[in-house]
Amino acid sequence: MSLVVVGSFGLDTVETPFGRREEVLGGSAVYFSLAASMFTQVKLAGNVGSDFPASAWKTLDSRGADRSGIQVFSDQPTFRWSGRYEGDMNEAETLLTELNVLAEPPCVPDNYRGAEFVFLANMGPDTQLEMLNQLQGKVVFADTMNLWIDIQRENLLALLARLDGIVLNDAEARSLTGESNLIRAGEALLKMGPKVAVVKKGEHGSFLFAPEFHFALPAYPTTQVVDPTGAGDSFAGGFLGSLAEMGEMSPANLRKAMAFGTVAASMTVERFSTEGLEKAAREQLERRYSELREFVQFEA
Amino acid sequence: MSLVVVGSFGLDTVETPFGRREEVLGGSAVYFSLAASMFTQVKLAGNVGSDFPASAWKTLDSRGADRSGIQVFSDQPTFRWSGRYEGDMNEAETLLTELNVLAEPPCVPDNYRGAEFVFLANMGPDTQLEMLNQLQGKVVFADTMNLWIDIQRENLLALLARLDGIVLNDAEARSLTGESNLIRAGEALLKMGPKVAVVKKGEHGSFLFAPEFHFALPAYPTTQVVDPTGAGDSFAGGFLGSLAEMGEMSPANLRKAMAFGTVAASMTVERFSTEGLEKAAREQLERRYSELREFVQFEA
Repeated sequence: MSLVVVGSFGLDTVETPFGRREEVLGGSAVYFSLAASMFTQVKLAGNVGSDFPASAWKTLDSRGADRSGIQVFSDQPTFRWSGRYEGDMNEAETLLTELNVLAEPPCVPDNYRGAEFVFLANMGPDTQLEMLNQLQGKVVFADTMNLWIDIQRENLLALLARLDGIVLNDAEARSLTGESNLIRAGEALLKMGPKVAVVKKGEHGSFLFAPEFHFALPAYPTTQVVDPTGAGDSFAGGFLGSLAEMGEMSPANLRKAMAFGTVAASMTVERFSTEGLEKAAREQLERRYSELREFVQFEA
Repeated sequence: MSLVVVGSFGLDTVETPFGRREEVLGGSAVYFSLAASMFTQVKLAGNVGSDFPASAWKTLDSRGADRSGIQVFSDQPTFRWSGRYEGDMNEAETLLTELNVLAEPPCVPDNYRGAEFVFLANMGPDTQLEMLNQLQGKVVFADTMNLWIDIQRENLLALLARLDGIVLNDAEARSLTGESNLIRAGEALLKMGPKVAVVKKGEHGSFLFAPEFHFALPAYPTTQVVDPTGAGDSFAGGFLGSLAEMGEMSPANLRKAMAFGTVAASMTVERFSTEGLEKAAREQLERRYSELREFVQFEA
């Protein structure tokens, strides 16, 4: 089924205990689409500058994404982000954010409207609401971040009331709901509107909350975490991409989608930038999916 | 099969966001034995003062533990610990530690020797080595803490070389091995000697590392975490108690034991002190065991 992602396309400068990379491909829509397009065709929307490099376009094209919804601005540069990870690398220290083209709202082509699945990556909830109005998707998931919880809470609540699913990390779930217990936080998220709440916990795995059931997974046990940038968006891409391929939001499909999100994220963190995800093939995801099942298996 | 635990018996004063309790029953051997004795008979060893209250003896007796290995000192008081938990309650702030009788080494009766299963709860590795020499258990697990990693590293390494299993938390695993990646830390622990390494991550669940397989579980999804004191020792009790009942350290049994450790810990954290564990019945553990299985289940 069709899957639209609205989000950022950027150039990142990243430093981790394993090295440093300058001006490499990044952005939420990029990670999301590289993961999701292993399952279904992805339609991209968002803004770039004319400095967005040819190699980046090539990477986006490599999995057959529709890029007709990417606006190219000639007068402003592409979004830049720079960050550093230390120690257990569970959190990035942001050194620099240059919004550039992200200051302009994205604009989606007519043929994106009515898509079966939509992902609104992290951006201002005011913009997410505007995108939702334009896209009129059937199953809509969104991400958010602490900044918006703090400064656009009303808009975020209005968005949540219209979403099928929210995807956010554990600190954000706690902050948004005021519940320090994550299970309570998950239940509180559902009361805000969405049918499904996905809470990502980095190296500690993830939770899914739905009215009929709760589900949890550890992270895929990789021994090689080189650069966590984009792990959350890759998770969302594997999750929503596989869900779009399966078509229906049943409990069994949601559980499987969580596992595909988990293994997609594991491919991302093992290399800098999008290198791991670019190399990933569907069969490798399937193999890690089976390993993840074995990893949590115990007898009745 | 027989199971011996050597550890502390104490009186705790605890403050959490849910209230405060003074001079309530605590100690590693207490939590361990209340959990383990739902599966098998437990033989207790350790020191108390004559101030150890009648109600505490009654609690220990309630599950039929052998307390012939508990030395009662008339000239020194029972071990005291006081601590506070805030926010997400993942870590206790220790306000006071009075070792009292714990300054004396424990002494185990002759009939404890050659026990099939032994748990050496957290204490100085020098004392743990001495206990190991006295007990000559067949399957021996031990706990440790950061203090010993820092000040008794040599003794701890000598102990590890003789253990069947080590049980410790994620920060301790990282500190002991120098590996920030927990999967690497687990593999490094196995190189230090034990056949099995269990890494507890509090609300984030736990890992088990063995040469042939790795295993992970999330915590049991309780919405009511009132007092995390003793969760780790309850985990160890449910783990080793059920393993002793099953008898053999096979991969399938180790996986099941991890799940029983997980649900035993969940009973502890829902009430202050040992209240939750005292109320727990085997059938309740079995029910949570099934719920935990369902919680992580996804189709191939």
